[in-house]
Amino acid sequence: MITIRHYEPDDWAGVWSILEPVFRAGETYAYPTDIDEESARTQWIEAPAATFVAVEGATVLGSYYIKANQPGQGEHVCNCGYVVAEHARGRGIAGQLCEHSQRRARELGFRAMQYNLVVATNEGAIRLWQRHGFAEAGRLPGAFRHPRHGFVDALVMYKPLDAGEQS
Amino acid sequence: MITIRHYEPDDWAGVWSILEPVFRAGETYAYPTDIDEESARTQWIEAPAATFVAVEGATVLGSYYIKANQPGQGEHVCNCGYVVAEHARGRGIAGQLCEHSQRRARELGFRAMQYNLVVATNEGAIRLWQRHGFAEAGRLPGAFRHPRHGFVDALVMYKPLDAGEQS
Repeated sequence: MITIRHYEPDDWAGVWSILEPVFRAGETYAYPTDIDEESARTQWIEAPAATFVAVEGATVLGSYYIKANQPGQGEHVCNCGYVVAEHARGRGIAGQLCEHSQRRARELGFRAMQYNLVVATNEGAIRLWQRHGFAEAGRLPGAFRHPRHGFVDALVMYKPLDAGEQS
Repeated sequence: MITIRHYEPDDWAGVWSILEPVFRAGETYAYPTDIDEESARTQWIEAPAATFVAVEGATVLGSYYIKANQPGQGEHVCNCGYVVAEHARGRGIAGQLCEHSQRRARELGFRAMQYNLVVATNEGAIRLWQRHGFAEAGRLPGAFRHPRHGFVDALVMYKPLDAGEQS
């Protein structure tokens, strides 16, 4: 059974084992492909408002962070990033993380969620976010330098989080 | 005669005298309206790749910063922020800063420029950026909490910077 709960320091080895291959591949997130472990920890764990993990027993299968996307007059819009372990894909975990993050975002008082750079070649992710209520709010021509496909478009995806809505 | 040149530490008092009323008003940029001077200096001067000032004699009339908008696979797209002194508006300085920033961006190797949060009520700015080649790449519903108008939309504006293009 998969549980989603707050990240705890002992989870780091499990989280990093999922993040590292995703960041090294550089096909879906705009982190430096040679990012070191400490910088990754700072950005995934310390900088965000909160980080969660999906666990099955003692095994971390996925993780997401949540943070304000902008300060000041933009701080009511949050941003999240999600990763799922290669060996755990196809089990609906990303969708569970997305729904969990939306509930958590409402509880934290955010009014909307924004993904700033969804790589246009990442079609599975785009369809997934659309199924969970996100719309394409914008398209950025050539904004992502894909290691295999070169400069590809990136989407800005956005979802208002109405307080009364079920998700 | 107005000159645009690199920011120097002695320019800070002049730059802050322009930034402070803009940030305190909170109608155009998503900085906390109660931001302290040191945080403003960090964000406008230290965090960016470079900061420039428009000066007339010894008087700072405007400023802009330039930085990568994303790390890693997004670092070829830059982001800029511009301010012009209240008493110097209507003299075309914002447009000059915009053109200067585009040339500088190309020299620094950036391939595109992105504005992440152009407040929809800031119609003069939107028209200005459009005149200088920016397109509305996206619209974020209610993404800016305007101090007088409440939650208003924000635009994502974007311009590819072709190496051969004159601007």
